Amino acid sequence: MKFATIGTSGITEEFLQAVKSVRGAKLVATYSRDLEKAKALAKSYGAKKAYDDVDELVADEEVEAVYIASPIALHAMQAIKMMMHGKHVLCEKSLASNLAEAEAMFRAAEDNNVILMEAMRPIHDPGYALIKKNLKKLGRIRKIYLNFSEYSRRYNAFKEGEITSVFAREMSGGALMDVGVYCVESLIGLFGMPEKITSAMIPLKTGVDGAGKIIATYPGAIAEMDYSKITTSDNCCTIEGEDATLYYTYIRDIDKIEVEYNDGRHEEFEREECENNMVYEIKDFINMVKKGENMEHYRAVSLNTMRMLDGVRMQNNMRFPADQVKTK
Amino acid sequence: MKFATIGTSGITEEFLQAVKSVRGAKLVATYSRDLEKAKALAKSYGAKKAYDDVDELVADEEVEAVYIASPIALHAMQAIKMMMHGKHVLCEKSLASNLAEAEAMFRAAEDNNVILMEAMRPIHDPGYALIKKNLKKLGRIRKIYLNFSEYSRRYNAFKEGEITSVFAREMSGGALMDVGVYCVESLIGLFGMPEKITSAMIPLKTGVDGAGKIIATYPGAIAEMDYSKITTSDNCCTIEGEDATLYYTYIRDIDKIEVEYNDGRHEEFEREECENNMVYEIKDFINMVKKGENMEHYRAVSLNTMRMLDGVRMQNNMRFPADQVKTK
Repeated sequence: MKFATIGTSGITEEFLQAVKSVRGAKLVATYSRDLEKAKALAKSYGAKKAYDDVDELVADEEVEAVYIASPIALHAMQAIKMMMHGKHVLCEKSLASNLAEAEAMFRAAEDNNVILMEAMRPIHDPGYALIKKNLKKLGRIRKIYLNFSEYSRRYNAFKEGEITSVFAREMSGGALMDVGVYCVESLIGLFGMPEKITSAMIPLKTGVDGAGKIIATYPGAIAEMDYSKITTSDNCCTIEGEDATLYYTYIRDIDKIEVEYNDGRHEEFEREECENNMVYEIKDFINMVKKGENMEHYRAVSLNTMRMLDGVRMQNNMRFPADQVKTK
Repeated sequence: MKFATIGTSGITEEFLQAVKSVRGAKLVATYSRDLEKAKALAKSYGAKKAYDDVDELVADEEVEAVYIASPIALHAMQAIKMMMHGKHVLCEKSLASNLAEAEAMFRAAEDNNVILMEAMRPIHDPGYALIKKNLKKLGRIRKIYLNFSEYSRRYNAFKEGEITSVFAREMSGGALMDVGVYCVESLIGLFGMPEKITSAMIPLKTGVDGAGKIIATYPGAIAEMDYSKITTSDNCCTIEGEDATLYYTYIRDIDKIEVEYNDGRHEEFEREECENNMVYEIKDFINMVKKGENMEHYRAVSLNTMRMLDGVRMQNNMRFPADQVKTK
């Protein structure tokens, strides 16, 4: 799979590190609004081509797939453009500003007979499969706590008055979209859509959230998603059944799973050693492109995630410019 | 302070163990509907008198204070009767079935010039004072997570069809009233009443809850109270500020407090060694009786706790017979 990248931030570098260790994946071109940045990235990761013009990128027939790691507000437009030109798209989370955009993106994938997949690390991590496999040991599952709370250095900048896109309303930013989505998507992947949600947020002065909590209700079970970019926690996730409790850390890179039984027994699981778990989503993406593997499942999880993110924002009156629909 | 006890369950024994090590506290009588149980308890803890008739207990002029550890639905009636006969009352949590009962209890205390205090361990624990003292180190406090989730052996009995009072609607039972109250009262003690709450519960077949989650909103901060009697968690509580995070376990017996700073520094606090932290509430109760110490504060915390418990039950349609008010 010959990749191009859109975006030059840290996450793109992590992606390109992972690409190096995935057989059959290769970087051939980079894109940035800033040509020098695109060139520097291309050079670092052995690509020959660097673009600052999207039209040149889409015209590059060598590029089979595009990894998009731009601000969230740009995902839909960029992804749809790439797909209309026959490129497969692996797009960073959150997939889009809202459900309407995400649906348009999947429609574009279908119309153009290409693959669109959200780059959502946990649900492609083998640790996640291990969790899923061990859930049946817990007895009736009653209570779930998923947590991703990590103080962001960008919040230091924010407090100094520098608004990076992760905290910008115009860029569909905020903690929910940036890190809350790990909790939401993990929950939906493991347990499906809840019957009901209720939520609260800590609003920042830009109109996006710095942290939040969501309670989701299932028949006979309740879950919480707890997330923050302005504070830090131990980031332990807990799935409590009537017979045992499963603990795991961290939600994004699942490297430790423990099951504590009520009767005192204890089990530990470690997923294979892995420095950069983006390799798993890249492998799954390539398998999806080649064989259509799990396409329906991941699409449903992504769309339901957007549905829940929309719901949480609605409950907390957090709107993005991208939500505006012209009524006239 | 010469105590009598109402109730003969495990918690009464814990109380009596604690009484032994509090200077100036002494058991003089026990009460149970079952005279043999009252006698056995009196014998074990060196009291000469045992009653199965409440009227005899209230007529016993040697008894200065009564510790009430009966099912919650009986607290108000028993406490008011004791106070009307000039006895001070230390009453187990939850103080009452609802706010109306709790207000009637405090009115009875005032009218009869006696002390009523809720036996709520954490807020009398020196660990709690340590937490309170260290909060200022955390920077702006943004997110709070208080947790008490412990599988109850009585839930085994419940599943076999045996409904003990802790799961009985008629006794104002359920997880919220039994253990959720530790989270609610700790939150209110540390941070005061929130602006808003939203909550979810797992209902059991008796109409009470087996577990639940409550989100509370403060200006610029959010808190969660997470509790269960049908599952177990690590019971770590977290108070997250912008500069540091305070972790503590357990909410009922606060024996370990840690502060992790964003800059990597780490502090640990241990409260004095204590086998049974009920000694602190007994000491505070005696000081309140003797000197009126902190009476207003603890009354306000208890009443606000009842107010929030009422609110959570209302949101989840969980009603007790004690909530019925005759409208005709």
